[in-house]
Amino acid sequence: MTRSRAGSRPTMRDVAVAAGVGLKTVSRVVNGESGVTPATAGRVRAAIAELGFRRNDSARLLRTGRTASIALLLEDLGDPFSSALSRAVEEVARARDRLLFAGSSAEDPRRERELALAFCARRVDGLLIVPAGDDHRYLLPEAAAGTPVVFLDRPGTGIEADAVLSDNAVGARAGVRHLIRHGHRRIGFVGDLPHIHTCAARLRGYREAMVEAGLPVDERWIATGPTDRATVARSVARLTGGPGAVTALFTGNNRITLAALHHLPTGAGRPALVGFDDLELADLLDPGLTVVAQDPAGLGTTGARLLFDRIDGDRGPARRIEVPTRLIARGSGEIPPAAH
Amino acid sequence: MTRSRAGSRPTMRDVAVAAGVGLKTVSRVVNGESGVTPATAGRVRAAIAELGFRRNDSARLLRTGRTASIALLLEDLGDPFSSALSRAVEEVARARDRLLFAGSSAEDPRRERELALAFCARRVDGLLIVPAGDDHRYLLPEAAAGTPVVFLDRPGTGIEADAVLSDNAVGARAGVRHLIRHGHRRIGFVGDLPHIHTCAARLRGYREAMVEAGLPVDERWIATGPTDRATVARSVARLTGGPGAVTALFTGNNRITLAALHHLPTGAGRPALVGFDDLELADLLDPGLTVVAQDPAGLGTTGARLLFDRIDGDRGPARRIEVPTRLIARGSGEIPPAAH
Repeated sequence: MTRSRAGSRPTMRDVAVAAGVGLKTVSRVVNGESGVTPATAGRVRAAIAELGFRRNDSARLLRTGRTASIALLLEDLGDPFSSALSRAVEEVARARDRLLFAGSSAEDPRRERELALAFCARRVDGLLIVPAGDDHRYLLPEAAAGTPVVFLDRPGTGIEADAVLSDNAVGARAGVRHLIRHGHRRIGFVGDLPHIHTCAARLRGYREAMVEAGLPVDERWIATGPTDRATVARSVARLTGGPGAVTALFTGNNRITLAALHHLPTGAGRPALVGFDDLELADLLDPGLTVVAQDPAGLGTTGARLLFDRIDGDRGPARRIEVPTRLIARGSGEIPPAAH
Repeated sequence: MTRSRAGSRPTMRDVAVAAGVGLKTVSRVVNGESGVTPATAGRVRAAIAELGFRRNDSARLLRTGRTASIALLLEDLGDPFSSALSRAVEEVARARDRLLFAGSSAEDPRRERELALAFCARRVDGLLIVPAGDDHRYLLPEAAAGTPVVFLDRPGTGIEADAVLSDNAVGARAGVRHLIRHGHRRIGFVGDLPHIHTCAARLRGYREAMVEAGLPVDERWIATGPTDRATVARSVARLTGGPGAVTALFTGNNRITLAALHHLPTGAGRPALVGFDDLELADLLDPGLTVVAQDPAGLGTTGARLLFDRIDGDRGPARRIEVPTRLIARGSGEIPPAAH
């Protein structure tokens, strides 16, 4: 289909001769680098078009056994958490001259598996996964064949592999302690599905903070489940309504916080709120939103560096790294308990 | 390094024989599909590990002349606009069994060129670009060789190629008309760098709305430049301060709106505000933020479909498609003019 496939393939040297320039000049134009005048670049491009020359990294890379690409498998490429993480991974990959494949599991373990195996079948040099499923044995043959895997945000299961996680339990404990310090005794927890690692760890942090303060936990104060707007609205209404109502809420991720903000009781009965994960306009709300902020860029950078250590031959035992979270007080978490 | 490279490569058939299952079962396990019991999958995986079998799509694809991948080059993978667009592109690519390369130009024309050419050198089947630079002749040889390019958000320059854009001028005109309808006569425009296509089109829409309402435009009401917080703060202070102050602002993109929100005069002198681009918590602000919302997912879906039409052989003339924007009134754009 392309001219370069017909007959003998033109080389950069052919282009240099045809354009009457040096090989380095052709290389600069071909790689999009600067340092070539527009007139010269135009001549080189005309020669490239004339000869049908095309740079072909895939063929070159095939001979090296490396593809100079890594893959990043996220929950949802469109989520702010995922996109901040992706950008950080991209920067590390760029510094190492690797291109980035990206894909979303959409929280579907089967889609995760399909995509991860598709990336491996393209022979990416390494794989970063925010796992959706809880069985990663399907990656054992890939790992054995030398494709390193690093899990982000949640650990993998059934496979010895590196994991870079937020300090979920520590962060949640700090958020709930903050509410306790502001006088709350009846504190609700609204979380994701409890089998998800991050939800389980954050719920553990909630319980730890309550126990260390000598506060009982009424199991009716804990609502876990899907994070759609309607479900969270029902949970918030249940936890904050009636005589046994909580005076404060801890929400377990950014989607839950966002949904809860739309359905909080207002006025004097407004509960205090601390959310896990920051949101973009959080400081402009009234009151400002108090959060336990994660560091998605830190997760991405740390995970990508670890992956490149493995690509470079590090065969040490699997590591688990926790990236710190940070409590940011802005108002919603400092509301005192309403009198009941 | 991997066992599969030593000696003759094991095939799926070898795995099927070793595991005592059919070829279809091996294929299901290898591709991560469901419909295999855990016990059988375990047996297949053991045989895969034993034989050192690995699925290799790259080798297979090399023979077809297609790489079953497309590339998406964004301004910033970490920006909410880009991430919504990416996710939409990913879904179209997935439906067409293509994997997605993603990269950020960081608004640097040289980085755009390097990345675009690196993607082409991997022989992606097609390229989607949100352009940072204003000279895309470097893509002419790639286009001539049969790699289709579709520009998103901003058109390409120096190359005949498809472009999918927001209806920037129409949207900005609607936003400014909305302010005029609410009694404003002195309206400021805070925009990006004026050579950027989107900024120029939105500024045109602003001028059109003023002209059609018979309103003069004082050039001091127009502030264009970098979109960092400090620059926008200075522009907002200049436009909204002093005796000739504007009573309303139109902000040209999400970063500018966000910065402006942090530096608006408060109280009775608060100007009305309409922003181009929506923000996640816009409805929870007080007043709610009135915006001209773009449809980044629509841009991504439309652009990706167009790209696949081209990949499938559509050789028609270059098309330019405009994706509609939508005015969402929430309060900030309906503030009446303060008495001066």
